[in-house]
Amino acid sequence: MSDRILDPRLRARLMSAADAAALIRPGDTVAMSGFTGAGYPKAVPQALAARMQQAHAAGQAFRVQVLTGASTAPELDGVLAHARGMELRLPYQSDPTLRAQINAGTLDYIDIHLSHVAQYTWFGFFGPVEVALVEVAGIRADGRLVPSSSVGNNKTWLDQAEQVILEVNAWQPAALEGMHDIYYGTALPPQRKPIPLLAADDRIGEPYLRVDPAKVVAVVATDAPDRNSPFAAPDATSQRIAGHLLEFLAHERRRGRLGDTLLPLQSGVGNIANAVLAGLAEGGYRDLTAFTEVIQDGMLRLLREGVLRVASATSFSLSPDGIAEFNANVDFYRQRIVLRPQEISNHPELIRRLGCIAMNGMLEADLYGNVNSTHVAGSRIMNGIGGSGDFARNGYLSVFMSASTAKGGAISSLVPMVSHVDHTEHDVMVLVTEQGLADLRGLSPKQRARLVIERCAHPDYRPLLQDYFDRACRESYGKHTPHLLREALSWHQRFVETGSMRP
Amino acid sequence: MSDRILDPRLRARLMSAADAAALIRPGDTVAMSGFTGAGYPKAVPQALAARMQQAHAAGQAFRVQVLTGASTAPELDGVLAHARGMELRLPYQSDPTLRAQINAGTLDYIDIHLSHVAQYTWFGFFGPVEVALVEVAGIRADGRLVPSSSVGNNKTWLDQAEQVILEVNAWQPAALEGMHDIYYGTALPPQRKPIPLLAADDRIGEPYLRVDPAKVVAVVATDAPDRNSPFAAPDATSQRIAGHLLEFLAHERRRGRLGDTLLPLQSGVGNIANAVLAGLAEGGYRDLTAFTEVIQDGMLRLLREGVLRVASATSFSLSPDGIAEFNANVDFYRQRIVLRPQEISNHPELIRRLGCIAMNGMLEADLYGNVNSTHVAGSRIMNGIGGSGDFARNGYLSVFMSASTAKGGAISSLVPMVSHVDHTEHDVMVLVTEQGLADLRGLSPKQRARLVIERCAHPDYRPLLQDYFDRACRESYGKHTPHLLREALSWHQRFVETGSMRP
Repeated sequence: MSDRILDPRLRARLMSAADAAALIRPGDTVAMSGFTGAGYPKAVPQALAARMQQAHAAGQAFRVQVLTGASTAPELDGVLAHARGMELRLPYQSDPTLRAQINAGTLDYIDIHLSHVAQYTWFGFFGPVEVALVEVAGIRADGRLVPSSSVGNNKTWLDQAEQVILEVNAWQPAALEGMHDIYYGTALPPQRKPIPLLAADDRIGEPYLRVDPAKVVAVVATDAPDRNSPFAAPDATSQRIAGHLLEFLAHERRRGRLGDTLLPLQSGVGNIANAVLAGLAEGGYRDLTAFTEVIQDGMLRLLREGVLRVASATSFSLSPDGIAEFNANVDFYRQRIVLRPQEISNHPELIRRLGCIAMNGMLEADLYGNVNSTHVAGSRIMNGIGGSGDFARNGYLSVFMSASTAKGGAISSLVPMVSHVDHTEHDVMVLVTEQGLADLRGLSPKQRARLVIERCAHPDYRPLLQDYFDRACRESYGKHTPHLLREALSWHQRFVETGSMRP
Repeated sequence: MSDRILDPRLRARLMSAADAAALIRPGDTVAMSGFTGAGYPKAVPQALAARMQQAHAAGQAFRVQVLTGASTAPELDGVLAHARGMELRLPYQSDPTLRAQINAGTLDYIDIHLSHVAQYTWFGFFGPVEVALVEVAGIRADGRLVPSSSVGNNKTWLDQAEQVILEVNAWQPAALEGMHDIYYGTALPPQRKPIPLLAADDRIGEPYLRVDPAKVVAVVATDAPDRNSPFAAPDATSQRIAGHLLEFLAHERRRGRLGDTLLPLQSGVGNIANAVLAGLAEGGYRDLTAFTEVIQDGMLRLLREGVLRVASATSFSLSPDGIAEFNANVDFYRQRIVLRPQEISNHPELIRRLGCIAMNGMLEADLYGNVNSTHVAGSRIMNGIGGSGDFARNGYLSVFMSASTAKGGAISSLVPMVSHVDHTEHDVMVLVTEQGLADLRGLSPKQRARLVIERCAHPDYRPLLQDYFDRACRESYGKHTPHLLREALSWHQRFVETGSMRP
């Protein structure tokens, strides 16, 4: 362990996770590292949860407000939720226990664009941050920090918090050193300057995080793996979705709207995203670039094969096999991967400048191209909007993908009106299901509706959507975006009452 | 007239509006100048409409697709709609005849962020642009164009169209020359560079529009006023709304989150916006800046008084009194006003960098902070989203304002669920009505709902909203964003059926 903590000032702060957790007080706002199950603190949250449970058993309240980069893991969100220790949580989350509490109404959750979190903290919109709890891969002799497998909002947390607790995780590859690019040129308006990034692989910052040693109240040594997400081979539905998207990209190339190396890819995580990446490899693409949030196993393969020339992200979320592959070829990958703060990976200025191709999943879309990424039946949160809005609004193309049905056909992903809107009709260009692809660019609402029904809806639901649309076109109050208000949300209501949207 | 057309090559193209209109063919995409009733072509659209009516009387189809900067005037949108001569229109519009056709379902309208229009045209997303029809204030001897009272998308139209028709309007003040800043540094990705604008008054371009003289097929001389919007004194409701907002800005200054000169102001148009501007003057503010879309009479006064130091916009929409004031003090105003292309005035990169305070009107908001700017009862379009999304998503503050009721109390602007979403819960920070102000920053959905009901709702509707929210908190499928799907849109349904949201 000791070779990871080289600054004697910080080494002097070494203590147990329990002692570090004791520095956190009820009511504190604790800003933690972690993005998509990578780089989150592994020990102190568990010790903090234990303290909370003791306090609760003794009849004392002990809850904190937790800010992160994005989703973490059972050792953070899971244990703190289980201890009923969070009164507020933001932004993106994906933990089952935490989600259950949010949807039971016992925990306040704020769903916010990932590109907004750091600046809102700087602006003071979330109030003071008492504690930053940040995992790093090492501490250099000069006190600078080797970032861990995700950068997330760590720069902001270290800058803004009154006190800092560091977890130094020996499990993280030492070879992470040098992969990161931490940009310290951000400022508050009116002092802001252009961000000098022109390409996905530009390095505009420095490889280390800075921290004022005087603020570091605890250093905790850990040796624990990130949440391991084994790579799942894409299923047939995902492959069909990917196939439609790849056909569309080929069509755009033929029309001269995209070049052979496309434009920087942003790709969500999960089965469909994996299928798209695999499809790019099979499609003969070379020298592509990614300007995205998360690097998963699939991207390592694409880098190895030369399909991807470079990948920029804020999180490095690998399976055990992925870690082994990375460690075996460190020098190769370090030249081709850049990890950045999420305020940079998701920055509207950069996404628009680079012209990203934004490819994200969705829960549902409606006839008119509004997309719901977050809420089941309008009220129950799934995970959160994440960075999908950052990329969809500002990218060159915005693509939303989903299977056309869920729950064995009980849910249609295409509905008359979405029950919650995360991406408006103004921000959605392309919808894809395994049934087909609807290119909504340059279309009016009714033109979109015809295409969504024809191309994307499942055959079981297509006649129902067509019937709704036909009647709405006749009976709607206005005929710009025809709707029957009494029925617009009836599919969701039926699902809530009967477990199925089918009539 | 002749002193406005100095290039002999273009002077040779002088012809009547009727002859120019004869160059436009059925099915053409015609990209026209015009933004908020300023700088639109005054003669050719009327001649075109006359041709269309002749064609229609002879049983021939004659419709075109019309792209503009934003809203125009009766001489453009009005006459073309009256002639049933548009099959497609984008973006923002406000003409009653046009609106009626859109809502009758006979005209396809695409509502799109103003910052997206130019780049989507460049990307080829709207197909080829056959004709640009652009009003200018003059043509220099070297062929460069003195822009008119709005810039809008004119740079893009002149660059992208196959053929160009110019209207040279002698009514426009000759003194407009030198006020504009046309930035020619934009490019297609991956060739894009940072836009080198750091402050509202930075000049990064040139004062003239460029056009390839070989593309100019017609020059038409006109002498006709812009749509004149006489300045309306703010009513009591608007003054109360402005009062709440000004109190909020003072509060933010006390908390150290805003300085004495605030941050660049973006302000929508209309009665409430005028009241806010007047309130800033009365509040003793000095040396403010505006980075906005439209300069109206009120801003001239603020510039004269030193309340505003500089105003950047894309449209100069003045009443006859405003024009007289401008002409009487040209040198003063030319130093303090910059008119830019709307791709720059509304650019996400710049709005975020400058940290604009975005203040826009809305039709309705819901308990959870979603805002509808465009649709009555979910289906009938009012005007369009305009630039409100560009500013709300990327500004330092996003404020949406409305009277708490409309139609004499028959409509509540605060509803259980908005019937259309233009600005999601992720993008709305502050709601203001004459009842009060709800600061939604850092609040979860249920926390927002309590504040919206308490601060913004009209007393007649407050108990109804509270009742909905209370029952939703008990009975909703999920308790993150509690909703009763059967009732969520019932207020709108009641309005459609009875003319009132009141039960």
